Amino acid sequence: SSLSSSLSKPTVWHEFSPLASASGAVNLGQGFPNWDPPGFVKQALKDAVDVPGPAVNQYCRSQCHLPLATALADEYKARPSWSHLPIDPLTNIVSSVGCTQVMYCAFRSLLSPGDEVLLLEPAFDIYASQVKLCGGEPRFCSLTTDLSAPLTSNDVFKFDWEKLEAAITEKTRVLVLNTPHNPTGKMFSMPELSRIAEMVEAHPNLLVFSDEVYEHMVYDDASSPHISFATLPGMWDRTLTLSSAGKTFSTTGWKVGWGVGPEHIIKKMTDLQNWVCFSAPSVTQEAIARSLVRARQPYLEYSSFYAWLADDYRRKRAILTEHLASVGLTPISPQGGFFICADSSSITCPDSVYHEPSLSAPQPMPRDWALARHLTQTVKVAAIPPSPFYSPANVAEASHYLRFAFCKTDEELEEAGRRLREHL
Amino acid sequence: SSLSSSLSKPTVWHEFSPLASASGAVNLGQGFPNWDPPGFVKQALKDAVDVPGPAVNQYCRSQCHLPLATALADEYKARPSWSHLPIDPLTNIVSSVGCTQVMYCAFRSLLSPGDEVLLLEPAFDIYASQVKLCGGEPRFCSLTTDLSAPLTSNDVFKFDWEKLEAAITEKTRVLVLNTPHNPTGKMFSMPELSRIAEMVEAHPNLLVFSDEVYEHMVYDDASSPHISFATLPGMWDRTLTLSSAGKTFSTTGWKVGWGVGPEHIIKKMTDLQNWVCFSAPSVTQEAIARSLVRARQPYLEYSSFYAWLADDYRRKRAILTEHLASVGLTPISPQGGFFICADSSSITCPDSVYHEPSLSAPQPMPRDWALARHLTQTVKVAAIPPSPFYSPANVAEASHYLRFAFCKTDEELEEAGRRLREHL
Ligand SMILES: CSCCC(=O)C(=O)O
Ligand SMILES: CSCCC(=O)C(=O)O
Repeated sequence: SSLSSSLSKPTVWHEFSPLASASGAVNLGQGFPNWDPPGFVKQALKDAVDVPGPAVNQYCRSQCHLPLATALADEYKARPSWSHLPIDPLTNIVSSVGCTQVMYCAFRSLLSPGDEVLLLEPAFDIYASQVKLCGGEPRFCSLTTDLSAPLTSNDVFKFDWEKLEAAITEKTRVLVLNTPHNPTGKMFSMPELSRIAEMVEAHPNLLVFSDEVYEHMVYDDASSPHISFATLPGMWDRTLTLSSAGKTFSTTGWKVGWGVGPEHIIKKMTDLQNWVCFSAPSVTQEAIARSLVRARQPYLEYSSFYAWLADDYRRKRAILTEHLASVGLTPISPQGGFFICADSSSITCPDSVYHEPSLSAPQPMPRDWALARHLTQTVKVAAIPPSPFYSPANVAEASHYLRFAFCKTDEELEEAGRRLREHL
Repeated sequence: SSLSSSLSKPTVWHEFSPLASASGAVNLGQGFPNWDPPGFVKQALKDAVDVPGPAVNQYCRSQCHLPLATALADEYKARPSWSHLPIDPLTNIVSSVGCTQVMYCAFRSLLSPGDEVLLLEPAFDIYASQVKLCGGEPRFCSLTTDLSAPLTSNDVFKFDWEKLEAAITEKTRVLVLNTPHNPTGKMFSMPELSRIAEMVEAHPNLLVFSDEVYEHMVYDDASSPHISFATLPGMWDRTLTLSSAGKTFSTTGWKVGWGVGPEHIIKKMTDLQNWVCFSAPSVTQEAIARSLVRARQPYLEYSSFYAWLADDYRRKRAILTEHLASVGLTPISPQGGFFICADSSSITCPDSVYHEPSLSAPQPMPRDWALARHLTQTVKVAAIPPSPFYSPANVAEASHYLRFAFCKTDEELEEAGRRLREHL
């Protein structure tokens, strides 16, 4: 049958979310907020469903529900770094079922058989599987990990420029960027992105897909603000920028994602979408269109919802950082996103765990995987092992750290702290 | 690039919906209701968004939001013809983004390169494109059209059993059924389905995908009630039954569709869905789960919402039938669904229309296409030409009829009648 065995294995998400529930663990694993969407976002969906006639409850344009495209064009154009770019809501914006399906449509409509896609490891596990499913060949270049540097994500996870340049071939069709980065929390700096842009200039066939779903979770000690690769000189025409509403509005279950880019990319993705789902759901797109307009306005005592959001996550990052540090799970401070990678070298894992049955772990079970299971089952705090974010050749890089999510209520973060201190 | 030119052409839907708007036509083209979802369905979405915590507004199970799977299992088991089937909500039900994406997941996860898929023409245009996109080969067997028969869809559109048997080869992996049928309104009878089941028995590698999205739009002059192919002896293990909430609850823009079938099919589709969208939206699945429970209860003066729905559509069918008949567009009475195919032989189309630019029509423009454009632009009543529902070899079958939708408000149906009588 057409699904190869590597694509029909359960994912790390299917192993750890059920394991966390079954163990009664505080779930700092999968990255979904465990609270409600903000009131204005919930109200926007209730208002959307009441719009009379077919405009919102029936099929929308296959490319993107027009009010969402308009709200997104306004949103991006309001950012100083984007204001020079020619974003037309009719031709430059496509929506789909979460950022995941936007990425799938992009790979499926733009890759030809045998095209290579370059992923920077650690890389969100879904990318490589999608590339394979779409007939492409994933190629990997690992960020080097330097734990002797100051423990912030941009310093610890570094580009090895020679390795990266060597990995680009005539067959490399796409380079996937992800900033703020999952799982490391690294935000790519202007010097880093400029150097990548030079490489892209030198390879006229190469496109960049830039996954920016954590763009609004950005902390004040970042060495630079969030930078979209598309805004660098000459890169608009070479870049698909992907984002979604799930993380920003705590609506991961609404699955509203989008891509912004030149017409030659967006047109192909739309042609494909016609046959995959015909169009994404309209009613949730309408709700997000309304939420995007509201989010730029003052919120509580903040200048905008985004300012509040970053501050709230900054506070949660501090809580989890302190708990992890207090038990020797030395945190690598993330510049953005809602995950903390922590050095787990000081924790020992009972040998027996390595021999436990696992749905998805490779055999023998990697150290990070065994340790994540041990924490979930014994300490009752679930974390994600980073090894699924690496290719087999580089998986050893994963062994010394674990990923903890802080998109969880303060009560859960405090309870996790208590359990960690009690057991470790 | 990877999308062949036939897959990157705009569809008939992208041509006629905009043409209808631009012409100020009453749109009896694309099949979406132009009214609001029922109050209990809208309320269900408002209630769903208010469920506290991550159960409804965050990611759900990739296979299907569990409350939807449970509601669907209950719904199917409550049908006498389904009650003997072993439907387990955990293993036998998958949801996706409308019936379209359920079908895509099925083709993509179950076809191997070169597998043949047999379509009964006329066939919804999306099937053949999906098959090609998924590496399969669409094969076509045309229902024969007999306009000398009594003008009801089951009599006019007939199986040619010899042609059908001849079309099945060792490479035929899937036969797609669609009952009630789009565009003809034919409902497959027990003798017809039994004969198909015999063929399936004779070909152990053959699966059946049965698209039943119009299952609740069934009229009392049907020669038999709606029959699900999966309920025939021995067919459960060989059949994926597909349906959706869009037509039943007038929520085509919510894009909630599902597949019911044996675990060996559902498991592969779920494995694929992990990589395409990770999971379908939860909040709309929750709303449809609640709506399914409500729909079986008394509604207005009817025994259930479904009884009301069929009766309301029966009334609309009568209105449109009368208008079409009054201008010599002789209706072929549909047994189910919300389309009427009408014999258009008596209408002449100006030669100039054949030379108008069209987004999607083949050149030279088929008669039905030219006539549908003429009606849309001059009479200002939009209809759909059936030629996109045929392969090139059989497209001549389309020339003598047009498809009119009656999922439109009474006012629009009456206005269409006035315009038809004024111009024809
Ligand atoms: C498909 S897992 C979704 C959450 C996420 O992005 C993560 O935890 O990394
Ligand atoms: C993708 S078109 C959707 C409506 C429909 O099913 C039809 O009009 O045939």
